[in-house]
Amino acid sequence: MPSEFNLIRQFFERPQSVRRDDVVLSIGDDCAMLTVPAGKTLVVTTDTMVENSHFYPNIAPYDLGYKAVATNLSDLAAMGAEPAWISLALTLPRADETWLSEFSRGMFELLNARQIQLIGGDTTYGAALSVTITAHGFVEKSTALCRHQAREGDEIYVSGTLGDGLAGFHLLSDLFHERKSAGDFCEEFLIRRNLHPTPRIQLGQALARYRISRCALDLSDGLVGDLGHILERSRLSAILDLDALPCSDALIRLYGREQAERLALQGGEDYELCFTLSPDKKPLLEQYAQEFDVPVTRIGRIVAANEEKPIRFRRQGKDIELQISSFEHFF
Amino acid sequence: MPSEFNLIRQFFERPQSVRRDDVVLSIGDDCAMLTVPAGKTLVVTTDTMVENSHFYPNIAPYDLGYKAVATNLSDLAAMGAEPAWISLALTLPRADETWLSEFSRGMFELLNARQIQLIGGDTTYGAALSVTITAHGFVEKSTALCRHQAREGDEIYVSGTLGDGLAGFHLLSDLFHERKSAGDFCEEFLIRRNLHPTPRIQLGQALARYRISRCALDLSDGLVGDLGHILERSRLSAILDLDALPCSDALIRLYGREQAERLALQGGEDYELCFTLSPDKKPLLEQYAQEFDVPVTRIGRIVAANEEKPIRFRRQGKDIELQISSFEHFF
Repeated sequence: MPSEFNLIRQFFERPQSVRRDDVVLSIGDDCAMLTVPAGKTLVVTTDTMVENSHFYPNIAPYDLGYKAVATNLSDLAAMGAEPAWISLALTLPRADETWLSEFSRGMFELLNARQIQLIGGDTTYGAALSVTITAHGFVEKSTALCRHQAREGDEIYVSGTLGDGLAGFHLLSDLFHERKSAGDFCEEFLIRRNLHPTPRIQLGQALARYRISRCALDLSDGLVGDLGHILERSRLSAILDLDALPCSDALIRLYGREQAERLALQGGEDYELCFTLSPDKKPLLEQYAQEFDVPVTRIGRIVAANEEKPIRFRRQGKDIELQISSFEHFF
Repeated sequence: MPSEFNLIRQFFERPQSVRRDDVVLSIGDDCAMLTVPAGKTLVVTTDTMVENSHFYPNIAPYDLGYKAVATNLSDLAAMGAEPAWISLALTLPRADETWLSEFSRGMFELLNARQIQLIGGDTTYGAALSVTITAHGFVEKSTALCRHQAREGDEIYVSGTLGDGLAGFHLLSDLFHERKSAGDFCEEFLIRRNLHPTPRIQLGQALARYRISRCALDLSDGLVGDLGHILERSRLSAILDLDALPCSDALIRLYGREQAERLALQGGEDYELCFTLSPDKKPLLEQYAQEFDVPVTRIGRIVAANEEKPIRFRRQGKDIELQISSFEHFF
């Protein structure tokens, strides 16, 4: 590894970062050594963010560090897992001290807040900036939230608001291509929602631990596409109430309700949870949602498999036809 | 994810690949779910290979798949760990069916031979071809081979032969830049040693399990640089016998003994183990080395810390001066 990469050590082995008791050996040997608590199952997820595919080259390094961690934690949240450790594979066109300092600041802000330890990784040179994080956590096997565990009659819920991530992405694209200049507070809100998604860790853990839900995923490719994964794996179908889709005031103000709904259905990068539960679990859900201050909204229900129409849409109680394509990164 | 990426599923969820009992949930959900055996400690390592930094763009996809797995398994071997699972983050400029078929064939050849399961990952588009693998394995905490555990008086050993990886790299560079055409069997041997390194998994596990060694690493950046990590972490120094350095016949035939020695000292990408042991463990080491058919060679010994000269070199019993720079990928 090139000698100037020595400076990386100072940014990724920070004395103020979290030291967990279950980390026997961290950065600096061939491998990290880790203890998984007795009775717990290990969960592992990997996400890559590549320049010009997942972010524009002008992204602030702080935002990139934050978002790369957040999107991985969102996958852990979607299993109902407790996050523990991450590995970081960072590919850089050059080693720039200010850039690394800001990137690591964004990363450690979220890691430290959640008591998660960086346990190792690899830093390499390459033409394109790229961040791959592998996140590790724990869950009780019997309570994990899996995509194949939806049941007929379950209500479908989402956390937070939908469509903000995709709207923020469009705004970032406009800014990058100089089609417009920096915007008002609504635009700023949506951009922030894209760059700083909130992994719903507490909610996911409560859904699992208190057996509120058996089935969840995180919305990274858009509600229609992602709900499709639940339906495919569970071999069921769904009816969605368009009127119920939770959209932020900022999204509605900028796009109007109808376009906001489309963004909510199609939108990628929301990193909210979509989960299903038996109607009798509603009081328990509302109790924990209130405790964690996370809005949750019932947006439809799981029904028997309908191969022709895995998802049917309703507005004001009536079936309507909608063509929604799933979100694809840039391409 | 772009729709053409659906074809990836057919290459990474192959029915003939290994299914381990400790994998509760594999590819297809937000996370993989995994069981770590009671009493064992989890080990995790991450390695990235990027186009034009770690390999030339003309690398055969089979070789890339093989080498990406091998280099990660080499890190597990250096801890004395038993490999279990890998996650794959693959960034591709385009999705090419033949390329993916060959890449996955190289990867699964090694995975299946070692009973290792691919448990998930992320496939993305990006301008530069890049492979990041996170490998997981198990080890008993008390027997793990760590860099800081060398002791004064230990003998230093290496497995296999040294310098082949770097020589193979130079030959690949010549071929890529068309400075020469395909070579004789010696050159082919060295290129193969670079592209298909042999992770010393059985040897590493025996060193740990039978308490032959407490300290090892794998030689990825060259003997002088990597041994330096052991010495730094163990706060000790070393004396190396240049005459003892094990070099392949092919290397000596092509470069002569003196240049072969330099390649052995400086050479990166050998992926052999360097380890230390108390002299009384020699018979046990030789027994297992013979059983696994892995050559091992004593190349020096660990001595008290000498801050001015962490590594001293000897030839025919006499101290000599040598300046060796560590291997750096391409740059």
